[in-house]
Amino acid sequence: MVNPFDDTYFMKKAIQEAELAYEKGEIPIGAVIVIDNRIIARAHNLTETLNDVTAHAEMQAITAAANFLGGKYLINCTLYVTIEPCQMCAGALYWSQISNIVYGARDLNRGCINMKTKLHPKTQIKGGLLEEETANLLKRFFIERRNLN
Amino acid sequence: MVNPFDDTYFMKKAIQEAELAYEKGEIPIGAVIVIDNRIIARAHNLTETLNDVTAHAEMQAITAAANFLGGKYLINCTLYVTIEPCQMCAGALYWSQISNIVYGARDLNRGCINMKTKLHPKTQIKGGLLEEETANLLKRFFIERRNLN
Repeated sequence: MVNPFDDTYFMKKAIQEAELAYEKGEIPIGAVIVIDNRIIARAHNLTETLNDVTAHAEMQAITAAANFLGGKYLINCTLYVTIEPCQMCAGALYWSQISNIVYGARDLNRGCINMKTKLHPKTQIKGGLLEEETANLLKRFFIERRNLN
Repeated sequence: MVNPFDDTYFMKKAIQEAELAYEKGEIPIGAVIVIDNRIIARAHNLTETLNDVTAHAEMQAITAAANFLGGKYLINCTLYVTIEPCQMCAGALYWSQISNIVYGARDLNRGCINMKTKLHPKTQIKGGLLEEETANLLKRFFIERRNLN
């Protein structure tokens, strides 16, 4: 039997969120949080709209998922995020004790892997899912912005 | 002339915030953000009350200060926080490009210094201000909690 709810399915939902950010002139990064094949939080980057550096997709998704669950720990949850999380978001994920993180493209400059941000020992992280698609969305955004200026 | 608005003055305001957290059963950490000797944000840890790991004092203060300033960068601002910031908060401070961070007691286990979280090159950080007072508040809180359980 084919499972329609695989990692690719949920990453595509995160990409849809990133596209919503794109349409608002925000750096296009999107995230969803899933438990038992059910999406319990969807969010996209809103740092410009809210004038708030803390309004990354992941941060909003963490808050929304905890609100849905009625508890602050995201045990048995998986975060799907289009780009590798930064220090801040990885730091928040550390506190959340989330079970799984799946990201699309790497962020070699500001991502948590090269920054060596510590994740919770219970957290598994893997990347490279729909990498080209997630990275291209970002590239297209920055090329467009450069041409506007 | 004596300047009443020195680092100690503002750290005491952060300690007042930490005391408000204590009264709510929250880990007692408080923060204020100051620009031109004026407090533009006050916050204390609310992770239990809000069921949200992202609700650290610093995170709320960053959001509130940006809201006050109408811009997301905290240039010329100083954060006073009773305990050394964690990875998440230091990561948020990195994005904010805040000019100064002054903390009270070190957090050797989860603080940004030992965790090697990267701050913005424009940010100065110093610690140890009213260290005993800020650390004692935490110690008293954890001793009390242990005795309750």
